[in-house]
Amino acid sequence: MNCPFCSPEIKNSVFAREGNFMALYNSAPVLPGHSLIIPLKHAGSMMDLDENELSRMMVFTRKVSSMLMKTFKAEAFNWSLQDGMAAGQTVPHLHLHIVLRYANDMPNPGDWYPKIAANTDEILDSAFRPKLAAGVMAGIVQRLREEARKEGIF
Amino acid sequence: MNCPFCSPEIKNSVFAREGNFMALYNSAPVLPGHSLIIPLKHAGSMMDLDENELSRMMVFTRKVSSMLMKTFKAEAFNWSLQDGMAAGQTVPHLHLHIVLRYANDMPNPGDWYPKIAANTDEILDSAFRPKLAAGVMAGIVQRLREEARKEGIF
Repeated sequence: MNCPFCSPEIKNSVFAREGNFMALYNSAPVLPGHSLIIPLKHAGSMMDLDENELSRMMVFTRKVSSMLMKTFKAEAFNWSLQDGMAAGQTVPHLHLHIVLRYANDMPNPGDWYPKIAANTDEILDSAFRPKLAAGVMAGIVQRLREEARKEGIF
Repeated sequence: MNCPFCSPEIKNSVFAREGNFMALYNSAPVLPGHSLIIPLKHAGSMMDLDENELSRMMVFTRKVSSMLMKTFKAEAFNWSLQDGMAAGQTVPHLHLHIVLRYANDMPNPGDWYPKIAANTDEILDSAFRPKLAAGVMAGIVQRLREEARKEGIF
């Protein structure tokens, strides 16, 4: 199976981990801080986790959201899940988006969503959004790993 | 505090409940099945729940999503959270959207989001989306309560 989130290269984007879940920095962020929470082991849907895993994924998601909010000095956040092709899921590996928000970051609060939806398929190699230069990406991931280490999630 | 989700009328929209959380049918659904998961007691943010509550909220959210998928014969679903004003949250009571999806239900998979974002503020009295007639709403809620009862969540 050719799943980008199961490829060895994914480790370069990982900045936090707890139990069976990890956090990736999006290489073409909609807004600064845009990250993804995914299970280490391939799962297609939120429906594929057992209740304990689901709980752990969401507790981890919240820890990562707090850490990102603090690091990026954000004011608010969105969580978004696209579960199933008809819902806009194109990478076949379960992933939950965390998008940090700032007052007036976009003309309307909902403007970020179509950007995510348009290229979830190409989240690691976006043709639509500018991709971070490798060095910039590596620097952000490095910084976030330091913060995650302080929080005990790396 | 004038919170619409704390008002007594909210009970007319509730079709499922488990522990400290309940599910409401959206009176101006973006798509058939569009529902909200909220805590019974007022909480503003996902950050205000303790870890146990967060876990229970998400397990309940998934149960309700499954039940809705079955009842509405949907193929996929979105979860969306707007946490904080800068993220588009306008009803000050924590709420997670469940939107059921069907192949080709909208020109693009992401088209639903701006509709939610545009009027979260008026989720119970939308000026933007057609509001269901009271009798239609009551019928849907009634039907969903029967399904929820079968699943042990009403």
